[in-house]
Parts: sequence; C-alpha cells; structure tokens
Amino acid sequence: MAAGIGVTAGDYRYRSDSNGRLICQYGLDVAAGLNLANDAFLRACRGLPVDQVPVWFMRQAGRSLPEYHKVRGKGSMLDTIARPELATEITLQPVRRYGVDAAILYSDIVVPTHAIGFGVDIVPGVGPVVEQPFRGARDLTRLRPLDPEADTPYVLETVRNLAAELDVPLIAFAGAPFTMASYLVEGGPSRTHALTKRLMHSEPELWSALLDRLADLAIASIASQLDAGASAFQLFDSWAGALAPDEYRRFVLPASQRIFAELGSRGDGAPGIHFGVGTSELLELLAKAGADVVGVDWRVHLDDARERLGPDIAVQGNLDPAAVLAPWSVVAERAIDVLNRNSGQPGHVFNLGHGVLPETDPETLERVVELVHGYKAAP
Amino acid sequence: MAAGIGVTAGDYRYRSDSNGRLICQYGLDVAAGLNLANDAFLRACRGLPVDQVPVWFMRQAGRSLPEYHKVRGKGSMLDTIARPELATEITLQPVRRYGVDAAILYSDIVVPTHAIGFGVDIVPGVGPVVEQPFRGARDLTRLRPLDPEADTPYVLETVRNLAAELDVPLIAFAGAPFTMASYLVEGGPSRTHALTKRLMHSEPELWSALLDRLADLAIASIASQLDAGASAFQLFDSWAGALAPDEYRRFVLPASQRIFAELGSRGDGAPGIHFGVGTSELLELLAKAGADVVGVDWRVHLDDARERLGPDIAVQGNLDPAAVLAPWSVVAERAIDVLNRNSGQPGHVFNLGHGVLPETDPETLERVVELVHGYKAAP
Repeated sequence: MAAGIGVTAGDYRYRSDSNGRLICQYGLDVAAGLNLANDAFLRACRGLPVDQVPVWFMRQAGRSLPEYHKVRGKGSMLDTIARPELATEITLQPVRRYGVDAAILYSDIVVPTHAIGFGVDIVPGVGPVVEQPFRGARDLTRLRPLDPEADTPYVLETVRNLAAELDVPLIAFAGAPFTMASYLVEGGPSRTHALTKRLMHSEPELWSALLDRLADLAIASIASQLDAGASAFQLFDSWAGALAPDEYRRFVLPASQRIFAELGSRGDGAPGIHFGVGTSELLELLAKAGADVVGVDWRVHLDDARERLGPDIAVQGNLDPAAVLAPWSVVAERAIDVLNRNSGQPGHVFNLGHGVLPETDPETLERVVELVHGYKAAP
Repeated sequence: MAAGIGVTAGDYRYRSDSNGRLICQYGLDVAAGLNLANDAFLRACRGLPVDQVPVWFMRQAGRSLPEYHKVRGKGSMLDTIARPELATEITLQPVRRYGVDAAILYSDIVVPTHAIGFGVDIVPGVGPVVEQPFRGARDLTRLRPLDPEADTPYVLETVRNLAAELDVPLIAFAGAPFTMASYLVEGGPSRTHALTKRLMHSEPELWSALLDRLADLAIASIASQLDAGASAFQLFDSWAGALAPDEYRRFVLPASQRIFAELGSRGDGAPGIHFGVGTSELLELLAKAGADVVGVDWRVHLDDARERLGPDIAVQGNLDPAAVLAPWSVVAERAIDVLNRNSGQPGHVFNLGHGVLPETDPETLERVVELVHGYKAAP
C-alpha cells in the first residue's frame, strides 16, 4: 500500500486501537482496508521527505464555501455539529473541492465545554458566548470531566463516518487551556483578555486548577477523536499571542505540555500541531509544549521561524488569509514566497496563517493547492 | 535653567520658531520663560542619562479617570477635542494626579481627517467610523492638505494653553499612514484589515498615493503642534503589527520614513516615538523609519527589544495594560521586571505596552509612577 507513494516500511509502526483493529502509526487504518492516496501531510508532520508539499487550510470547511451555505441551514453552529451526516458532508466538501492533503473535523473548540453543560453557544457574527462566565472556585464544578461516548456521541459518529470515507488523514482538534479559559472568563471574544489575565495574576492556584480541567477536556476530546479514526491533532491556542513569553511559560505551558505528553503517551504516533496567532515570541515555547508541528502566522517569515525552532520541529503555515483576497498574481507571489522561504526542507505543511476569511473566493484556494502541489524548490 | 536638573549646556541646541522665539532643542521654550521642572522624558528619548526613569501612560488622559468623566459631558469625543479649555483641562488631569514626566495632547488620530471633511466620527464603544470609506482613486481628492491654523485652530489653541501651563514636556501625535489607511478603507476598526491589504496588494500605486496623502496630513498636524509648543511627537502605527515584515518594508516604510525625515529636518530636535502593537517582527523597521524611540508592547521582553534595536535607539514601554488590573504585588513585580530588563541603561521611557484600559484603577497608576521614579537599577 505504501509502496505507491514512495515511502518505506521503516517509516511506519503499528498498534491496535480500542476495537482491536490494527492502526498504522500515521493513521493508515490497515485492518479497515483504507487506502490513503495521500499521506504527505502525516509525513511532513514527522519531518519526512515528501513528493509534494502537503496543504490544508484552517477553516477550509465552512463559511467561505457556497456548498456549505446550501446544506448548513439556520440555527446555531452547535446544532449543525450535532448532526453527524451534515458534519460529515461539510468536512468532506473542501476535500472534494480543493484536493487538500488533510481533512479537519467540522466542529468547534467550545463543543466539549458546551457538551458538559457549561452553557456556551456560538452566536453568528460574534463567536462563542458564555451565559454565566467563570468567576470563581465554585465554577470549577461546572467543568466536570468529558465522557466522549455519552457527551459527544455525534462527534465520534462524524469521525467514524469520515474515517470510512476519506482518502486523506483526518485532523482532530481541541481548544487549548488558555484560549478556552479566555472565552469562559471573558464570557466571549475579547480584544484585551483583561479579566483572564487578572484571574491568572490574582488567583494563580485557581487559574492552575481551571487550566487543568480544561487540559483534561482537551485530552479526553482529542483522544476520543483519535480512537474514532483521526490520525493527527491540532491544539488551538489561538489567543496565546496575547501573553508575554514569561507569562506563557509560567501560567500556560504546564497545562498545554500535559496535553501533548498524555496524547503522545498513547503510542499511536498521531502527530500534534500547536497553533496560535501573534506568537512571534512564543514559537520556541509552543514547540517546548511537546508539539511535532508549530503553526506559524504570517507575521513571522517562515525562514525566521525555522531558524528559531530548529531542525526537529515541523512548521505549518503561513500565507496571510487577507493576502488571499488579492488578485491571483499577488496570491501566487505570496504563496511562492512562503514556499521559497522553506527552501524545500522536509517538515513543512502549507496552510494559511489563520482561518480562511468568509469573503475568500474558493477558486483562489483551488489555485493555491495546485500551486503548492506543483512547486519544486530550487535545487 | 538646565543646571538644576543635572544637564550640561552641551546637551542642548537652540533654534528660532516660526514666531522668532528661541526654542531649545529639547523643547524648553527659553524665550517664553518656561521652566520645565522635569526634562527626564526628553533626555531619555535622546538616550541621555537621567536621575529617574521617566514615565507616562498612553491614554493617561481620558476614560480611566473619574475627573475626566466629570468634565467630559456627552456627545462625540471630537466635540470635546474641539473645545480648547476642556481639552487643556483633560490633558492636565493625569499630569496633576500621577506626576508623570510628559503630557500627551488630549486628541485623536482621526482629528486631521475629520477636520478636512473626510466624514469620520468617533462612536463610543466602537471607535472611528467613516461614513463613506475610501474605495478608489476618486476618493483621493477627499484627502486635501491640512491647513492647521484654519482646519484645527482648536488643537493649536489647546497646545498653546498647555505649553503655558505645563512644567513637563507635551507630546504631539498623529496617526501613521498604515493605521489611518486601515480606518479609512475598512470604514472602522478591523480585526483582519482585509480590505486594506487587498487595496495594498491590488492597487499598489493608488495605495502609495493614499499613504502619501496620509503622510502629508501627519506631517502638517505634528509640525503645527510642535510649532505651538509641543516638544516631542509620537507616530501611532497601532495596527502595523498586522503586516509581515516584507509587506511593511515595501508598502508602509517609505511613507512613514518621510514623516520622520521631514519632521527631523525642521531642526528643532523634537524626538520622535514610533509606536505599534504586535510589532515583534517589525521593531528594527520601526526604528529604520527614523524614530528616536521605538514603542514596545508587552509581548516582547525589553531586553530582547534592546538587543534587536541596538544602543542608538531608545525604547518606550512595556508593562501590559491588562496586568495593571491585578493586585498591587503583581503589578509591582511586573513593573520591576520591565525596569530590570532594561538594567538601568539610558534611553528608557517607562510606559504601558498599549493604552490604559478604561477599567484601570487610577490609584494603581499613581503607585506605578512612584515605583518607577524610586527605582534604582542594581549596580
């Protein structure tokens, strides 16, 4: 199976999943007879050579696709996520359209918190909104452990559907403790994260307890997605860039480190991606948390990021999602610049520096995929 | 005059202003008999030794002060700015309360654009809102040159009032071309600056013409404030951190460079501060634009910023405005960390990394000023 895509057996290890099926280290489910036409994404995450630079887009499923609006219907996004057939279809749409090298589950980082009854919804045009924000120690009890089979069966059903249908790897994901804490403490999106930082600085023990519970939620959620058939995961610490490096190291790193350690100890070798925006000063710490791949936004040129991260960490990124709105000649120039800055080194997953903007023309992304796949680094 | 504050005559140069009055290089208006009790701010901007680290706070005048809300009244902030007696009083309030080492004019970066009739207002809770955003070449004519005496006489009257009353330097300011362009193109505050970047990439010549007009406005506005008695200026490129370094260099640096060059060629030696948030990757370029002082937000530790900027550039910052909401012991620890990271080198103006948050307790800022003034670096 692997022979046709130019990999050697030495690249792979196998394990049994919870149902006794043999799972390849890189998520190729051998027993189920899946034939991943494209494992370039998983190879790149591991820093292995690839024939073509793999590419996917954060938020590739959703708002920017007309076929999404056609099937999505009205109501809260959480209702759509809770309908496995619909969520499966929405996850597949960009894979079909773009020919990307990975699928990412159509879901949201607030799903586990919502599922355990913390009282959070996603309001169109606003984002996550929490009815009763986290205010003190008594709110800790509202963050009970996640039982994925009971609390988010629809997520697992969607993942199982996808594992059966996809011929590219599926990326599981969860919100990282800091970013989740910010939503729960602020009660919604925040420009300053002022209440969150106040809690962090004023009540470090409560903060640490909060982050521990959020880490547990992330671990349980991602582990269940991997068990159900996902082959890699991304931890979204989207707002970590609001912190100074010493704050991140002291108040956030321990919880995020535990997530990567516990998921890594599963032994299935699913690579972990660690992502945030505005993280110029945090790249080394995002790697130190235990990531195999560090997501880089467009503010740091990829060669600079590479230099800071060293040869053992793969990078993901980093075309500016706003630059994608420009005419094609500009988009092409910017995409090629990203590729050139990596100089053909292994360990690069092409992506945007943040999620696809709703006003993006899908045809542009189609052409980006074509460009990335056709790219050959200068010798 | 200077003898009492430990400076030597060699530190100063003199020039005549437009009214033939003798102006000291550091803005001490000798002919008018001003006696600045505190020129530590201007000395620090020039990298000269000081007895105490000077400190002021971005947005020190305004929202966070009860005495501001008492005098401010209702209506648009632009109406308040247009009343010189009120604007003078509001500018003085934090100087009185905090004993800061510099005053910053109570005004707003949209004032010149508003004054020439582009149609912009400041909406409480939102920010600048532009009725008819900049869409194409025909909108260039809406950006006619600023005639400060005719268009913003109230600003000049306020500055003259302040020059007569203050015993600390007054900081003039303007919005930088990129940040102003973003407001005019987006029509208001934007998280992604998507339309702005699209214009920049799609129509580079129009973009360049737009930035040139905005540079002219900044130059005219700052020059008129300096003529009226301000002794330093700050160029606010608050949102420049949204750009990748190569984009900044190509699309923004030339216009901002011209501002510092033209204001520098006046020969009054008023130091120029260049400020933005999220500018980790842009610090060297912000200095290259011609700034004497580079504003650093809290995301970059000051020792790292110093290392990148070299010994000839002063730094301003960089306590996290959100950290100021924490209990005093934490605020003190964070403020001392900022000071320690500078290790007592000359050329440091203490400030927050961004504007004072509205929910800040003024007493905390009083204590920060006391702490900064009492600080002695370890020998």
